[in-house]
Amino acid sequence: MNDRTARDSPYDTGLGKCAANYVPLTPIGFLARAAAVYPGRTACIHGARRISYADLYARCRRLASALHARGVGPGDTVAVMAPNVPAMIEAHYGVPMTGAVLNALNFRLDAATIAFILEHGGATALITDREFSGVIGKALAETPGKLLVIDIDDPEYTGAGERLGEVEYEELLATGDPDFAWRGPADEWQAISLNYTSGTTGEPKGVVYHHRGAYLNALANILVWEMPSAPVYLWTLPMFHCNGWCFPWTISAVGGTHVCLRKVEAGAIFAAIEAHRVTHFCGAPIVLNMVVNAPAEHRRAVDDTVEVMTAGAPPPPSVIAAMEDIGFHITHVYGLTEVYGPAVSCAWRPEWDELPGDERAAIKARQGVAYPVLEGLMVADPDTLEPRPRDGKTMGEVFMRGNIVMKGYFKNPSASEEAFRGGWFHTGDLGVTHPDGYIELKDRSKDIILSGGETISSIEIENTLFKHPAVLEAAVVARADETWGETPCAFVDLKAGAEPVTEADIIAFCRGNMAHFKAPKTVVFGPLPKTSTGKIQKFLLRERANAL
Amino acid sequence: MNDRTARDSPYDTGLGKCAANYVPLTPIGFLARAAAVYPGRTACIHGARRISYADLYARCRRLASALHARGVGPGDTVAVMAPNVPAMIEAHYGVPMTGAVLNALNFRLDAATIAFILEHGGATALITDREFSGVIGKALAETPGKLLVIDIDDPEYTGAGERLGEVEYEELLATGDPDFAWRGPADEWQAISLNYTSGTTGEPKGVVYHHRGAYLNALANILVWEMPSAPVYLWTLPMFHCNGWCFPWTISAVGGTHVCLRKVEAGAIFAAIEAHRVTHFCGAPIVLNMVVNAPAEHRRAVDDTVEVMTAGAPPPPSVIAAMEDIGFHITHVYGLTEVYGPAVSCAWRPEWDELPGDERAAIKARQGVAYPVLEGLMVADPDTLEPRPRDGKTMGEVFMRGNIVMKGYFKNPSASEEAFRGGWFHTGDLGVTHPDGYIELKDRSKDIILSGGETISSIEIENTLFKHPAVLEAAVVARADETWGETPCAFVDLKAGAEPVTEADIIAFCRGNMAHFKAPKTVVFGPLPKTSTGKIQKFLLRERANAL
Repeated sequence: MNDRTARDSPYDTGLGKCAANYVPLTPIGFLARAAAVYPGRTACIHGARRISYADLYARCRRLASALHARGVGPGDTVAVMAPNVPAMIEAHYGVPMTGAVLNALNFRLDAATIAFILEHGGATALITDREFSGVIGKALAETPGKLLVIDIDDPEYTGAGERLGEVEYEELLATGDPDFAWRGPADEWQAISLNYTSGTTGEPKGVVYHHRGAYLNALANILVWEMPSAPVYLWTLPMFHCNGWCFPWTISAVGGTHVCLRKVEAGAIFAAIEAHRVTHFCGAPIVLNMVVNAPAEHRRAVDDTVEVMTAGAPPPPSVIAAMEDIGFHITHVYGLTEVYGPAVSCAWRPEWDELPGDERAAIKARQGVAYPVLEGLMVADPDTLEPRPRDGKTMGEVFMRGNIVMKGYFKNPSASEEAFRGGWFHTGDLGVTHPDGYIELKDRSKDIILSGGETISSIEIENTLFKHPAVLEAAVVARADETWGETPCAFVDLKAGAEPVTEADIIAFCRGNMAHFKAPKTVVFGPLPKTSTGKIQKFLLRERANAL
Repeated sequence: MNDRTARDSPYDTGLGKCAANYVPLTPIGFLARAAAVYPGRTACIHGARRISYADLYARCRRLASALHARGVGPGDTVAVMAPNVPAMIEAHYGVPMTGAVLNALNFRLDAATIAFILEHGGATALITDREFSGVIGKALAETPGKLLVIDIDDPEYTGAGERLGEVEYEELLATGDPDFAWRGPADEWQAISLNYTSGTTGEPKGVVYHHRGAYLNALANILVWEMPSAPVYLWTLPMFHCNGWCFPWTISAVGGTHVCLRKVEAGAIFAAIEAHRVTHFCGAPIVLNMVVNAPAEHRRAVDDTVEVMTAGAPPPPSVIAAMEDIGFHITHVYGLTEVYGPAVSCAWRPEWDELPGDERAAIKARQGVAYPVLEGLMVADPDTLEPRPRDGKTMGEVFMRGNIVMKGYFKNPSASEEAFRGGWFHTGDLGVTHPDGYIELKDRSKDIILSGGETISSIEIENTLFKHPAVLEAAVVARADETWGETPCAFVDLKAGAEPVTEADIIAFCRGNMAHFKAPKTVVFGPLPKTSTGKIQKFLLRERANAL
């Protein structure tokens, strides 16, 4: 490009931004439009309940109004601990309508981690489902400062749990103004949400999304999935995961119907598909596995093809093939919390249609090519950022750049700087580029364990193991598992003269000190193999774990 | 919203833009992605020629490289005078790849107007098809200053015309670098194109588009039309019209095939549909009318439904119904040059499917609701900007605001200011809002007929006239009248071979199909005068009506 800039030209004189021609991008507007265009259409199904688009919009404005009246505004954080219920969808609009930032919490976390997140994220309000009052009650007890606590007392939930807050969610909405005059962000770079990763090392990191990226990824989902207008979308993917990969916003942009689901079970999935004529759902490979292996009494015939988008771990080709055999059509995407969920998709080429089923599945198991809104994707040398040859063999780190890369890590400029070194986001994932330009992951960054759609840090487990009085050394690796994808396998060397300890003892200890799902499923006792400089050789442990 | 701003919060500390997470939006990248993902797919069909996506991308980079080598860069204007040929598509990428601005010229304009545009637009280069060498030769003679002139000598064109420039287009490409390292705009607000309106009064105005708006409208076309991947798109809409409504960019974003067409004729349209299995095309109602009234020898059966997007004038319901009867599915959109082409669409509600054909067509003839990327649309008082009631009756001016509203008029700040007064773009179109929120145009403000204290929509009368079996084209204007102030005067062109029809027949037909006071008082038979873009010249008809 020439050195002259456009500034010198008449194209930049008298042609500036004004209210008529510039509006900061925000996905909130998709709901306003859906309410205007399809006011009577069902936006949300939850049990026997139906919420129209007009009503959903009014409820979101009520929520915004009520939060605003209680002092919530720009720069504030509002945390939500809830399964996939209407309140969670509404929070994706009502919270940013006040200018505040949505912090959806992983409801599988333990109280200590929740307390950490509430404090680090600076939440001034918390909306929490009664189901999680146990862990939330403990977390609040550990959190200094006063939060506005709002309970969701969902009639669809009949289990144990108590109200913790000063007001119930529906009561709060009743105080709000359905015509609340929300405004979009003054700047599309403004934060819309905060999502904590489980973090490979140490404490969770808060990934900050902005309105611009949420808008663009919400639209890109439609393109990548070729979504028609008015899909019926089943909420199998937790909304705390990368804001449900931005689908709370996507579905409004296409005037679709959200089918809520408190608990993800094969029977419930098949029942919803049959009852509501579900057309689309998303899920980690573990959810696909659950569907494929559903017991006969839970199965229903899938009359029309149901579109399934999968991400969260590399899906085994056998699972893809089995799903397609019973009437589901799989779109495989790949991403990370740092890139608003999926940012890469295995874009299908028609010439692959002719291949045998297992070859098709193997091709579809590759991660693929950049989303239309991701401007750069490459497999490159982790240090020099020199792209690797497109030979399907030479491994490198996966790098991304573009408008759906996070703002950065909250209150952690050094981590942000490291993640963005060289002007690219360092995913920490290892892969190859095939000659056709499609990338394929070969390994996650070594320490991560992907279990049932969750990322588990081996170091976090090791730190827990080290708290056990009998443990001398510990290392945790991923072990392949048919059900969970991977499970944590712990190698433990006991202190000389320690009391006898069993596998069950170690597992129970971990479950008592961290979220249950993070506890190792297997424990092996004995000395750990080390390099000459004393580093534990995890690749050897991985081999051993998978040979068990 | 609270008065606090997000600036005070930790969400704006250490979370700034960098190369990893911010890239100015530009539609150029869609082609780079299509070339990476679908390199072997046919991007372009022109006669017997096929251009793959890899080749199209290489050709665009060659064009950019060659222009760059000749000094073209940011802030420059490159004009193109060509029908819908590959060079025109390539200019939509190659020109902005240099940072320059594309000025696609209406090839039906006269030499004096072209000369005015070349000078006003400040073109430093002109790419011109041999077919238009007559008018361009004259225009260049009138244009002071030296332009780089590049001739397109298209083998598909065998008519008269000479080369005017120093280099032929393919020769120019041969000098360019297929790996040219283009860069996107430094700022997405940078101009990408300049489109002159035909302007019924005074000199043409240059509408400036930016990369951001072109990117967003290119994506919005996909959503509004629910375009699947890899459509086959027939170029019936001239690319000089609002950059072919942004479809040169849209088609790359979905990896589709451009089918070029030098000349828009019913026979050629049907032949292309049959030969290339065309799935989509766009056209003004006049093109639809041409298709519907095609002589039998040009017709082909339309085996699969062909999606047709129409805009440019309110389509008569009878034309919509006739198109749908023979296998086309119509999507009706509405816009203006100032909003990147279509910005409003008649989004279809499934409940309308059950209505009789003529009622469906009448609903579909309404202009509708805002595009997902148009943030504001209203019918309001032209002076106070107070919205009109949603009663389907009270007329007002149509106003728009959002990211697909132009930067402004080139070198005309006072016109821009007037167009954007009050923070809304003033369309100059008059319409109503129906109770369901859909807008319907009733007229251009200058076309409305004021008769005996009533306002009569010329469009409503024209729609009635189109229902008459003998009517091919119709236009209605106001005629001065001592008693009534004005009365409607209809100009009608009959179908070839139609039964003889009298003025009294037409008036009686109108009185039988609409309120009596709205029926024309005068009917004139014969062909209608049209602008170079095919719009009926109502100002000429008004003169004729008043000279009767």
